[in-house]
Amino acid sequence: MSLSDYTHTLTQAVSELSDKHSYEGLFHQYKDGDPLPSGKSLRRIVELSREILFPGYFGNSTVHRRTINYHIGVNVEELFSLLTEQIQAGLCFGLENTPSDNVIKKIPDRDTAASIAARFISKLPEIRRILATDVEAAYYGDPAATCFGEIICCYPIIRAITNYRIAHELYMLNVPLIPRIITEMAHSETGIDIHPGAQIGHHFTIDHGTGVVIGATCIIGNNVKLYQGVTLGAKSFPLDENGNPIKGIARHPILEDDVIVYSNATILGRITIGKGATIGGNIWVTESVPAGSRIVQRRE
Amino acid sequence: MSLSDYTHTLTQAVSELSDKHSYEGLFHQYKDGDPLPSGKSLRRIVELSREILFPGYFGNSTVHRRTINYHIGVNVEELFSLLTEQIQAGLCFGLENTPSDNVIKKIPDRDTAASIAARFISKLPEIRRILATDVEAAYYGDPAATCFGEIICCYPIIRAITNYRIAHELYMLNVPLIPRIITEMAHSETGIDIHPGAQIGHHFTIDHGTGVVIGATCIIGNNVKLYQGVTLGAKSFPLDENGNPIKGIARHPILEDDVIVYSNATILGRITIGKGATIGGNIWVTESVPAGSRIVQRRE
Amino acid sequence: MSLSDYTHTLTQAVSELSDKHSYEGLFHQYKDGDPLPSGKSLRRIVELSREILFPGYFGNSTVHRRTINYHIGVNVEELFSLLTEQIQAGLCFGLENTPSDNVIKKIPDRDTAASIAARFISKLPEIRRILATDVEAAYYGDPAATCFGEIICCYPIIRAITNYRIAHELYMLNVPLIPRIITEMAHSETGIDIHPGAQIGHHFTIDHGTGVVIGATCIIGNNVKLYQGVTLGAKSFPLDENGNPIKGIARHPILEDDVIVYSNATILGRITIGKGATIGGNIWVTESVPAGSRIVQRRE
Amino acid sequence: MSLSDYTHTLTQAVSELSDKHSYEGLFHQYKDGDPLPSGKSLRRIVELSREILFPGYFGNSTVHRRTINYHIGVNVEELFSLLTEQIQAGLCFGLENTPSDNVIKKIPDRDTAASIAARFISKLPEIRRILATDVEAAYYGDPAATCFGEIICCYPIIRAITNYRIAHELYMLNVPLIPRIITEMAHSETGIDIHPGAQIGHHFTIDHGTGVVIGATCIIGNNVKLYQGVTLGAKSFPLDENGNPIKGIARHPILEDDVIVYSNATILGRITIGKGATIGGNIWVTESVPAGSRIVQRRE
Amino acid sequence: MSLSDYTHTLTQAVSELSDKHSYEGLFHQYKDGDPLPSGKSLRRIVELSREILFPGYFGNSTVHRRTINYHIGVNVEELFSLLTEQIQAGLCFGLENTPSDNVIKKIPDRDTAASIAARFISKLPEIRRILATDVEAAYYGDPAATCFGEIICCYPIIRAITNYRIAHELYMLNVPLIPRIITEMAHSETGIDIHPGAQIGHHFTIDHGTGVVIGATCIIGNNVKLYQGVTLGAKSFPLDENGNPIKGIARHPILEDDVIVYSNATILGRITIGKGATIGGNIWVTESVPAGSRIVQRRE
Amino acid sequence: MSLSDYTHTLTQAVSELSDKHSYEGLFHQYKDGDPLPSGKSLRRIVELSREILFPGYFGNSTVHRRTINYHIGVNVEELFSLLTEQIQAGLCFGLENTPSDNVIKKIPDRDTAASIAARFISKLPEIRRILATDVEAAYYGDPAATCFGEIICCYPIIRAITNYRIAHELYMLNVPLIPRIITEMAHSETGIDIHPGAQIGHHFTIDHGTGVVIGATCIIGNNVKLYQGVTLGAKSFPLDENGNPIKGIARHPILEDDVIVYSNATILGRITIGKGATIGGNIWVTESVPAGSRIVQRRE
Repeated sequence: MSLSDYTHTLTQAVSELSDKHSYEGLFHQYKDGDPLPSGKSLRRIVELSREILFPGYFGNSTVHRRTINYHIGVNVEELFSLLTEQIQAGLCFGLENTPSDNVIKKIPDRDTAASIAARFISKLPEIRRILATDVEAAYYGDPAATCFGEIICCYPIIRAITNYRIAHELYMLNVPLIPRIITEMAHSETGIDIHPGAQIGHHFTIDHGTGVVIGATCIIGNNVKLYQGVTLGAKSFPLDENGNPIKGIARHPILEDDVIVYSNATILGRITIGKGATIGGNIWVTESVPAGSRIVQRRE
Repeated sequence: MSLSDYTHTLTQAVSELSDKHSYEGLFHQYKDGDPLPSGKSLRRIVELSREILFPGYFGNSTVHRRTINYHIGVNVEELFSLLTEQIQAGLCFGLENTPSDNVIKKIPDRDTAASIAARFISKLPEIRRILATDVEAAYYGDPAATCFGEIICCYPIIRAITNYRIAHELYMLNVPLIPRIITEMAHSETGIDIHPGAQIGHHFTIDHGTGVVIGATCIIGNNVKLYQGVTLGAKSFPLDENGNPIKGIARHPILEDDVIVYSNATILGRITIGKGATIGGNIWVTESVPAGSRIVQRRE
Repeated sequence: MSLSDYTHTLTQAVSELSDKHSYEGLFHQYKDGDPLPSGKSLRRIVELSREILFPGYFGNSTVHRRTINYHIGVNVEELFSLLTEQIQAGLCFGLENTPSDNVIKKIPDRDTAASIAARFISKLPEIRRILATDVEAAYYGDPAATCFGEIICCYPIIRAITNYRIAHELYMLNVPLIPRIITEMAHSETGIDIHPGAQIGHHFTIDHGTGVVIGATCIIGNNVKLYQGVTLGAKSFPLDENGNPIKGIARHPILEDDVIVYSNATILGRITIGKGATIGGNIWVTESVPAGSRIVQRRE
Repeated sequence: MSLSDYTHTLTQAVSELSDKHSYEGLFHQYKDGDPLPSGKSLRRIVELSREILFPGYFGNSTVHRRTINYHIGVNVEELFSLLTEQIQAGLCFGLENTPSDNVIKKIPDRDTAASIAARFISKLPEIRRILATDVEAAYYGDPAATCFGEIICCYPIIRAITNYRIAHELYMLNVPLIPRIITEMAHSETGIDIHPGAQIGHHFTIDHGTGVVIGATCIIGNNVKLYQGVTLGAKSFPLDENGNPIKGIARHPILEDDVIVYSNATILGRITIGKGATIGGNIWVTESVPAGSRIVQRRE
Repeated sequence: MSLSDYTHTLTQAVSELSDKHSYEGLFHQYKDGDPLPSGKSLRRIVELSREILFPGYFGNSTVHRRTINYHIGVNVEELFSLLTEQIQAGLCFGLENTPSDNVIKKIPDRDTAASIAARFISKLPEIRRILATDVEAAYYGDPAATCFGEIICCYPIIRAITNYRIAHELYMLNVPLIPRIITEMAHSETGIDIHPGAQIGHHFTIDHGTGVVIGATCIIGNNVKLYQGVTLGAKSFPLDENGNPIKGIARHPILEDDVIVYSNATILGRITIGKGATIGGNIWVTESVPAGSRIVQRRE
Repeated sequence: MSLSDYTHTLTQAVSELSDKHSYEGLFHQYKDGDPLPSGKSLRRIVELSREILFPGYFGNSTVHRRTINYHIGVNVEELFSLLTEQIQAGLCFGLENTPSDNVIKKIPDRDTAASIAARFISKLPEIRRILATDVEAAYYGDPAATCFGEIICCYPIIRAITNYRIAHELYMLNVPLIPRIITEMAHSETGIDIHPGAQIGHHFTIDHGTGVVIGATCIIGNNVKLYQGVTLGAKSFPLDENGNPIKGIARHPILEDDVIVYSNATILGRITIGKGATIGGNIWVTESVPAGSRIVQRRE
């Protein structure tokens, strides 16, 4: 049988797959001239941010002390341009997915996006300052670490926390979609899943990291350390009259300063882990824990 | 000492590494004219499938409603061509790795492969229909989700379940090797490890996902939800007379409709979790659970 | 407002980010003519090693039995060249990050690096021999596996253990930084985090693998099998007079021959799991376990 | 001397090269949000046009008769999108380079560009019809040609005339800059330099082609054949009061139908080569030639 | 006006361009499973041949004397594989373009192609021997040349003559289409147009080269040197009863040993330029020239 | 016959091609750690130079007036780094190809190369100044040109003269090999062959350009204009006692200021074309021409 005998099968499949009922809700229609959220551009945005924040460690550039400002300058300009486009794309995307269809919607313009991008860039020095404390925390928390450079080059927490801190800033500027894509990139790269809405203090670190989940309404103080497999999740969520989860309710834990949570512990619900508390590995916690306490696994 | 002094060391290593005893069992010999299983082609196959199933969300194309059939048409044709080649490669690979060497083997031809590829493509509309229910399940199950588009773009479950549903279809068509490679791609990308042999109903979702394992003989009903770190594994497996595990025995759990399994729970063996049951986080389950029951962690 | 109005904001950010106080400790200054540790080169080094160790399975080459030595030859030569450069980069990096600044440091030259690279390459036949036992262990340990080829192509443990065995060899040759980068590549790809300093015997395997952590001072015997989510970690680490962890102390478990550790078990501290012992899933172990014993989860 | 001693030299050069007097007239300033004429996009536009006009011969696509419309559809859509952007870029570029600075200029918008792009695309069927006659002319004019396919694949005239016919259409639609870039691409590829402003009839061919020059105001009839090295140029051009050449005057030859011009002949000025005339190789012609005449080289 | 208003125009163009009458003769229909002549593969074939013939000068490889055989081995194997595929594609292409449609045609199989590819590869040592004489001729003929290496790296004649000698060998093996594509690649790269059917002796060189044309039935002896712009062409060609040129007639010049032809000279027709003759620049020659004579331009 | 039957043929060819007598003089042996002249790096060097000299016209960068110094800074730094490496490669190459083998040769070090690269970069502002005059000359000499930007974007002379002016500067700094490779890149791109040793004044232009040849010892004044196909060549060259051409003798024409040479004219030998002279098309000139004279083609 000749291969061309499959033409009918293929044509039939194309026809079914092109039927509008078939792709309802699964199709993102392009509007001419509007920018599209682009995985490729967002990956470049993350690369550029890492190159700017940790010059010489990320990117291919061979940066000297005396010429560092040329590199930062070129990278900031490219970042501004890509971010403006992607933020505009995110705003368009957010708009079309807002359920209230009978409200007259104003198409987000390039200038609005540029203004947000500029505000984001003005926060980069502050982001670098806090990331420096995260590098310190990772270094002083791991006896196997030999120098700051090794931490920045190799440790997955640096990639995860950098993406989170970038994404959180965009989230605070009300950019839709983009922040979550950026933290999911780090999730795929490191196994660490931090929601961009979470609030995290300085000197934060996670050792090993695979399997960590930090929910959207978490509040984490300073000097907090987590190990692999820790979940800071929601215990349950109230349903609305249609049986769907109500959005926007504070439902994840608060960890005060100096808390340590060991591997595979699970902390659920809007509870508070008090300042300086230690939560042992594999522990399941659903009620608040006083400051300074030490919750450990019973012996098997 | 000149660098060329290392020539002897290198030449010696090349010679040892080229010795046929050295690479026994670790070498895949190429036969002229036979297609090779190719990671690159399989990655493209996954991309194309995602582009066809969720038009406008994956791929770079700027798809309009009126021209969508051109895009689907070109993508389906490329998919058919690559799949035919890779299925033939998989069949060749499967053949040469079948232990019974004294049976006369028929070399799989291109036409057999094309016929399988065409059958797979004719299933794509059905695959899209069930994936639409998975998107719904993810959306209604997460208070942090803002729209279907965000789910499709960002949520790791969509990548994992799409690869699984593709791979499962190929598995049911008796294609060797390829299905497992496709699910392992999603495993690497998302930390979710679903064996292509598992059976999974509609409206399936996994939240966060890292560390989830779903074994080859699992049967999962409709409206099932898992959280990160859940294992649906084998408890133990009977050995044959040589002390090796016997292949092909049903050894993983059955989850009936509407089951929820919370994070890091472990369910092992050919047991049944009854309709509507809830398994709490960090729970270890090795015996069947009646419908509607609620198994939770004792308080620490 | 014209976009160029953002020029001031951008220029201000560039200026702050180029301030030397801002990037202190986060900047890797390039020295002309010195090679740089390069993620791209190291990824190629891993690819080349995989191509050499498992000819025909990794890489694009269409290798025949009679021409295999040409392929091994070309790959070994490229590997030697890239490794020499990267090892020199690693030595330079290690040097500049050594804290004792008042010691006169000898710049590592290319010849030192080449000598280490040559010694590494002379170990490749031995690395292949032990990897062959790991392939066997994975095959005989999984009823779902159909042939050795499937193991090599698909199973994440092969990627993780190959990177570890390469990295460990470089670690034993006192190459700084590079070994950790190589194991973190596998960590990102597979979710399996093995420190290059760990010692691991032959016939080692890990099933599924996501979330496994094996610490720097672990000692693992022969025929050991782990499942996903297993942690072999440190219980605590003594602090020095400044309150920082003391580096270099043996603090991770010893697993003797024939040990099996099931999913999500956590074994902490310098304890010994005796020959042939079995540790059940989700178990928390902080004290030594005698040979042949079987530690299991109590029933919930 | 350390390499960093060159810092002063480099910094000095950067400073001089960034001085605005230094780059006056050699700098193309970017305006945010405006598209830029892009060599990469224009190369893709040429590729797409060739793929659409000669399906299956250019591009990588494996086109079948029954699925050809999918391929044409996707290519036309991408062409429309790229052309719209590049035409807008060309219009912006043309505007800013118009000397009359005191006229109020209307910024060309995307819709104007799209309208031109659509008109261009509606001409593609006609362009294909005339290119079919050019293929015929090349085939019947060369005893070494074996089939139409060889002409389309290999003969430089096909690349040159295709680019010219595309560029001429854009030129007639008053698109600035872009037409010339497109013909210069063919000039670089083939050594054939046809100005997009020239008018050329059907069944046109050039054998070998290197060194051919066809000026902006040439008018060439049907069934004309040129050989390599032929110049159809301007004899001289009147100067304006400032001694600069006056733009826009008809100054290149008219070749009527059925003319043949042999290799390295030079025809200069607004003269007419009459229908069916033959101009011999290496001939220098600056006055009109009657129809049917035969101008040949005197014997040496 | 919204951009989507152009949909009708685009759809109309797609429909016309997909009409089978529109693309008659301009369309290359793909048959499933048949290899396609591929510009990309042929460029790689040329690169590989250059790498094999001039090791260390072309390609990226860092070739040593002791490991050169690994490099040659890998390159020859890749060349054999690509050539086999492309020759088969060429044979299929040639077959379908043979006019006599009523003859039963045998589909060329992979084995026929492989046999031709192997014969070609067995000629490579001889091709290298004659190319070595061409390098010598270029070196001794140019006072500006400083060493053999400069000739091989920079001089366009080396690229042109290498492609010609490869293509001529394939032409002698009756491979359709491919030889011409290979010489046209060099034509585009260097401006030198040598038909693969021409016969050229050893120690051949061309200085500068742009604009040189060497026709299909030329016969060129040993130690011949040409300059830029030289044409060795056909004077005229007899027509058949339909007025089309008769194919396959010897119609280009014979240049005996030791002939020199200066720049822009034109030699036309089946004439003989005798041994040791010199043809001056810009000369037009249409009759045979005796051995040893010197034809020069009259003084202006 | 199985394809593997060709193994013998291939192995035989590899063996012959790896024989050291076979590749004598055609092989460039790599020395570990020495940089290699690299076509890829040199193409990047040309790109970078064009980006620096004509900011915003070449390269992808979206350069603004206020941030131009960042772009120039980054490009100059990369140019310095690549040039240093390639100049060192050129010096090594030059050394090994110097015939006098009994002289003790000093291996060129990186610092020597860096010093030359820095001197080259300090000349870039001067190179830009003279290129600005070349742009002017092209613009005022062509009635079809619409603005400076069109000249810079499209006109082949700009690419040819830029490469020449860069290459000439390196030639004056005694860098071997590299200058010629750079001018040959422009030769391939434009058909214009200018030897890097030629001396060319300001306001130089060539119209169309294909086929122009400018020899190594040419001296060209200011305001000179050439047309396509012009040769400024050597008439003959004296041979040494071995019958080889003597290197380094002035043998190409001198063109004084304000000379115009029309298409396909050939000027040979160390003659002088006086100030303001005009040489007509297709003219053959081998004796000096007085200032202000007008040499034209006799009427045919």
